[in-house]
Amino acid sequence: MVGDERDNKGIVARKNENFSEWFTEVVQKAELADIRYNLKGFLVFRPWSVYSMEKMYSFFEKSLQKKGHEPHFFPTLIPEENFEKEAGHVKGFTPEVFWVTHGGDKKLPEKLALRPTSETAFYQMFSLWLRSYKDLPFKSYQRAQVFRYDTKATRPFLRSREFHWIETHCAFANEEDALNQVKEDMKTSEEVLHGIFCLPFMMFERPSWDKFPGASRTFAADVLNPDGKVIQQPSTHMISPDFSKAFDVKFKDKDEKEKYAFMTCYGPAISRIFASVVIVHGDDKGLRFPWEIAPKHIVIVPISNDSELVKKAEELKKKISVFTDEVVIDLDDRKSPGEKFNYWEMKGIPVRIDLGKKEVKDKKLSVFRRDLNKKEVILEKDLMNYLRKVSVESGENLKREADKLFKGRIRDADTIAKVKWVLSEGGIARCGFCSVDGDGEKCAVKVEKEIGAEVRGTLLEKENVSGKCVFCGKNAKEVVYIAKAY
Amino acid sequence: MVGDERDNKGIVARKNENFSEWFTEVVQKAELADIRYNLKGFLVFRPWSVYSMEKMYSFFEKSLQKKGHEPHFFPTLIPEENFEKEAGHVKGFTPEVFWVTHGGDKKLPEKLALRPTSETAFYQMFSLWLRSYKDLPFKSYQRAQVFRYDTKATRPFLRSREFHWIETHCAFANEEDALNQVKEDMKTSEEVLHGIFCLPFMMFERPSWDKFPGASRTFAADVLNPDGKVIQQPSTHMISPDFSKAFDVKFKDKDEKEKYAFMTCYGPAISRIFASVVIVHGDDKGLRFPWEIAPKHIVIVPISNDSELVKKAEELKKKISVFTDEVVIDLDDRKSPGEKFNYWEMKGIPVRIDLGKKEVKDKKLSVFRRDLNKKEVILEKDLMNYLRKVSVESGENLKREADKLFKGRIRDADTIAKVKWVLSEGGIARCGFCSVDGDGEKCAVKVEKEIGAEVRGTLLEKENVSGKCVFCGKNAKEVVYIAKAY
Repeated sequence: MVGDERDNKGIVARKNENFSEWFTEVVQKAELADIRYNLKGFLVFRPWSVYSMEKMYSFFEKSLQKKGHEPHFFPTLIPEENFEKEAGHVKGFTPEVFWVTHGGDKKLPEKLALRPTSETAFYQMFSLWLRSYKDLPFKSYQRAQVFRYDTKATRPFLRSREFHWIETHCAFANEEDALNQVKEDMKTSEEVLHGIFCLPFMMFERPSWDKFPGASRTFAADVLNPDGKVIQQPSTHMISPDFSKAFDVKFKDKDEKEKYAFMTCYGPAISRIFASVVIVHGDDKGLRFPWEIAPKHIVIVPISNDSELVKKAEELKKKISVFTDEVVIDLDDRKSPGEKFNYWEMKGIPVRIDLGKKEVKDKKLSVFRRDLNKKEVILEKDLMNYLRKVSVESGENLKREADKLFKGRIRDADTIAKVKWVLSEGGIARCGFCSVDGDGEKCAVKVEKEIGAEVRGTLLEKENVSGKCVFCGKNAKEVVYIAKAY
Repeated sequence: MVGDERDNKGIVARKNENFSEWFTEVVQKAELADIRYNLKGFLVFRPWSVYSMEKMYSFFEKSLQKKGHEPHFFPTLIPEENFEKEAGHVKGFTPEVFWVTHGGDKKLPEKLALRPTSETAFYQMFSLWLRSYKDLPFKSYQRAQVFRYDTKATRPFLRSREFHWIETHCAFANEEDALNQVKEDMKTSEEVLHGIFCLPFMMFERPSWDKFPGASRTFAADVLNPDGKVIQQPSTHMISPDFSKAFDVKFKDKDEKEKYAFMTCYGPAISRIFASVVIVHGDDKGLRFPWEIAPKHIVIVPISNDSELVKKAEELKKKISVFTDEVVIDLDDRKSPGEKFNYWEMKGIPVRIDLGKKEVKDKKLSVFRRDLNKKEVILEKDLMNYLRKVSVESGENLKREADKLFKGRIRDADTIAKVKWVLSEGGIARCGFCSVDGDGEKCAVKVEKEIGAEVRGTLLEKENVSGKCVFCGKNAKEVVYIAKAY
């Protein structure tokens, strides 16, 4: 509520007409973040996004802890030697590492990486911590920021040079247990991302050329944008055995033999998932949130700062506090009531209570719920029941709307022209493909160059295949999904 | 419960005989942190400390939000030009800044500081956000890590090159409001540090030579170690007007004039406060925690992994879950019951329930409470009342014990010999002092060189002074407190 934003009257761009402009406007006008910090690709996250992201962290952490993951805080800096231990990893990440080279005016004896991801830090300790099969499974995680010197165009929340995430790092006695962890991670995504944040997604195994550097298999959740593009959200990686060897992560198994552990990692990027919350649930007025992750729950807008109304607002706030203490009273005398209504609709607060003298006298309340954009008058004595109802229904309504996004979007395509047509309609093309191993990469390049889209991968449960690869005409060995992506 | 720690049988060093060794043992054996990460001065925080620190964060954040501070996430990196804007700040901090100089293999156009503190990042945005007196007070904070290339010896939690803290950054219309914020911050420290973490402290205004670089006045809470040394905990700084000018943080006041804002910052360092929790509450057996910030609340130890006992443990856990879900069942078959008892006492879990067949049959429970190191047998049906009682009393008991620390420790001293004697007895010397402005610095150097102690400062409420400075014989203008410090 400070600074230049006051001059703005609301979102101008239409979400479905000019998505990109709409997103930029929402980020700025709803005060989610400020892009004016004097360092390219780095964002100042403002309270309205932080309140929500803190809740998102909390849901993910609870879900992980319940499944046996324990929290750690690892150093933000990783010595260069750790990176160099695993060839694929170093090759994949070093082009985008920020390097610390000096402490004060002294050159450090070794370059230190600002963590782009923490496998090489965790595994360093795994090699000290893990001794016996009784130490397995070992399931850890940390809440952290990661840094990538990304040379592509940055975009608030979606692609920044510093982002906020959770990374789990786990070790298992065998590959089967590691694969089961992938399935558990999918369940966590379903529970949290879909169940609570109300974001539908599809889970793919990525083709071999699109794996995490150092992984033997990579799985990722793709969330669909209303504009038809997909956004990669949490991914899980089965780490290559080369990695365990490079870091000497061994354990003594039941048969008394020393064996290398199988590792997995899972990385829900909270600040990026927040972008999907904005994008999937937002509308032309601005933000909408499921109750559980709304920055605040309720705003009370007295139509003037008359002392009777202010007193009544305080009284209501106190009354509501048995249910939620996330109640804001808007007394900003720089805005008219109408401007306040627009402002709070743009901010996506789930419930607004408008308070005038008539309402106070009649013991009635004029309420607005943002999930349905519906205004109604209720009896003051029914307020608590009303709030309870909205707190349950808002998520259900947003989820129902969001789930419709996928409906009819996935379409079979048996020619390149059909693939193009499906994508042009904002869909995801499902088609036969020669191979998701190295062999298929040529066709993937074709998809990128000719269609401007990506092979997102295969389903975890193998599908029946017949016919030819749409791109090279060889026998199809896989069913893949092709989409445009952010 | 993994790795080398299994071989350890408990804490060997006595806290009051060899404090330093005791602290090191507790950190390692109670699995608070691992110092073996391959980068000097950087710590791997393990679950047992992280669970507790997360609770500590939560209490501080709630207290700050209640007082109107709003959360932000600022970039970890700060461009060099920001630092150079304020002379005192750049001089104070640059010797200990970690510098990022490269992105991938490219040299960056400007060096970037890994934040040692964030004034120069926040003020950059304050200059954009603040326009009118109506925007003030502006009260913000962030939870973050900070980095200092400290060349002194590092020590887990107490002094590391990366630590975890909260930093508030506030702006006010006038100096009086800023000073009131200092008092509010003191109240926050009292509420949280003392009220919940049960750590008694004294609040001093630091002498001019010991101010934060860029501050006009610095205030700090000193927590007393059982060994008589003090540890600086949250400090609040009134920022120098030069800083507002350097960053052009202005607002239009009621009188329509443009004025520079007055800033304050407050920095509770959670990972360092955790050290005080360990140090103040711990005993020869290891850790003790107030219930509110214990990593977990209850452990159930079946004296064997007999299925009947395991079933009973699960049943109890479920029963307790209406009160707390922080219950661990210890089924590790690598430890004997006796080893488990020692282990959990070392870990400081507030309540242990030992489960044998006799107890199950008699519907009785053998319980151990760590605050009083007391074992008793209770009726199973009284368990919930017992837990409720301990959850309230454990903090009260630890606080009462800790508060005794200060009792009789502060003693008047009117000669150098008396100061030395007070310090040798583990006390804090209160004495007349010439000046806490530049003039007194010579005497402070004397205190450091001749006594190995520090002038910690004056009380916020000015005390009556008479007599001479103990160190130079000039008229005393101040009453100062002298202590040994970490």
